[in-house]
Amino acid sequence: MAVYDKQNFPVEKVRKYLEPGPVVLVTSSWENQSDIMTLGWHTILEFSPSLLGCMIASMNVSHDLIRNSGECVINIPTRELIDRVVAIGNSHGDEIDKFADNRLTAEPGCVVKAPLIAECFASFECRLYDGALVDNYNFFIFEVVKAHVDPQVELPATLHYTGEGLFRVMGEQTSDQHKKFKPEMLI
Amino acid sequence: MAVYDKQNFPVEKVRKYLEPGPVVLVTSSWENQSDIMTLGWHTILEFSPSLLGCMIASMNVSHDLIRNSGECVINIPTRELIDRVVAIGNSHGDEIDKFADNRLTAEPGCVVKAPLIAECFASFECRLYDGALVDNYNFFIFEVVKAHVDPQVELPATLHYTGEGLFRVMGEQTSDQHKKFKPEMLI
Repeated sequence: MAVYDKQNFPVEKVRKYLEPGPVVLVTSSWENQSDIMTLGWHTILEFSPSLLGCMIASMNVSHDLIRNSGECVINIPTRELIDRVVAIGNSHGDEIDKFADNRLTAEPGCVVKAPLIAECFASFECRLYDGALVDNYNFFIFEVVKAHVDPQVELPATLHYTGEGLFRVMGEQTSDQHKKFKPEMLI
Repeated sequence: MAVYDKQNFPVEKVRKYLEPGPVVLVTSSWENQSDIMTLGWHTILEFSPSLLGCMIASMNVSHDLIRNSGECVINIPTRELIDRVVAIGNSHGDEIDKFADNRLTAEPGCVVKAPLIAECFASFECRLYDGALVDNYNFFIFEVVKAHVDPQVELPATLHYTGEGLFRVMGEQTSDQHKKFKPEMLI
């Protein structure tokens, strides 16, 4: 298992890792309870403030922990964690200790109380920014308040879910297109 | 250029194609104007009704066309269209005819007036479902009302944007994980 040396990363640039659409592992904690959930329903909403929207169904223990704490951490796993991603997505936070049972290591964050996952190359500490759509759509708008990324990981082999138990892995980079971009579009 | 034979696809299953996070081409029309824009900021929100959230910045011509018409089509390009995806993302709908200038073919939809793009293997006709977050976040919640997919395309080489003019292409499928899923999770 890879060991990552995550360093501070600019929060306004987290789209680099989230916009391609990977499955993420969301950690949360409230009082004496913590949880990890798998999540594929998320989108970047803004660069600065660094906003991220996530649909977190109310049947998940994480939903309540995040509503109560107003915080979470978005961690990005890669293909070597697929067994744990699947196991976490198919267990309930009330049944097990998701860290111990999945051999994952909790690391303390800088800003929020929810833990980072050491086995993920990127972890983004988030605070709830706007909960206006939580009641109707389970849609949480978070602000990324601190980002941690291992700069050695250049082309992460992220997992992308297509339903029915099937995943794909992110592939190669295309030729660099930046010369065809208007300068103002190169954010 | 591939020629696709798109057929009806169940709207509640469009997550298969959108959840992995591809860049999409959004078409819209209102009165005598039409537009195409590239979009990477989208997420599935619900299976049934088939809901999709999209952040469409107000500087895009498409933003107004979609607000006025309450409709759009989400088309999914693959890697052979990268030049056109980049060109569309770096031009303004007021300047050019985005279909003609990019050698793209408009096909009529079944339900909405916005055109489908023939050169894309999947096209999802959408109606605006909830515009409550448009003013604050440019976030449109659409319902997919009709989906068209070429069933011959099994593992589409979709494009995924990572910023700064760089794209990655979706890669291989992992081994089938469905036996590790709880039945109720195999949606």
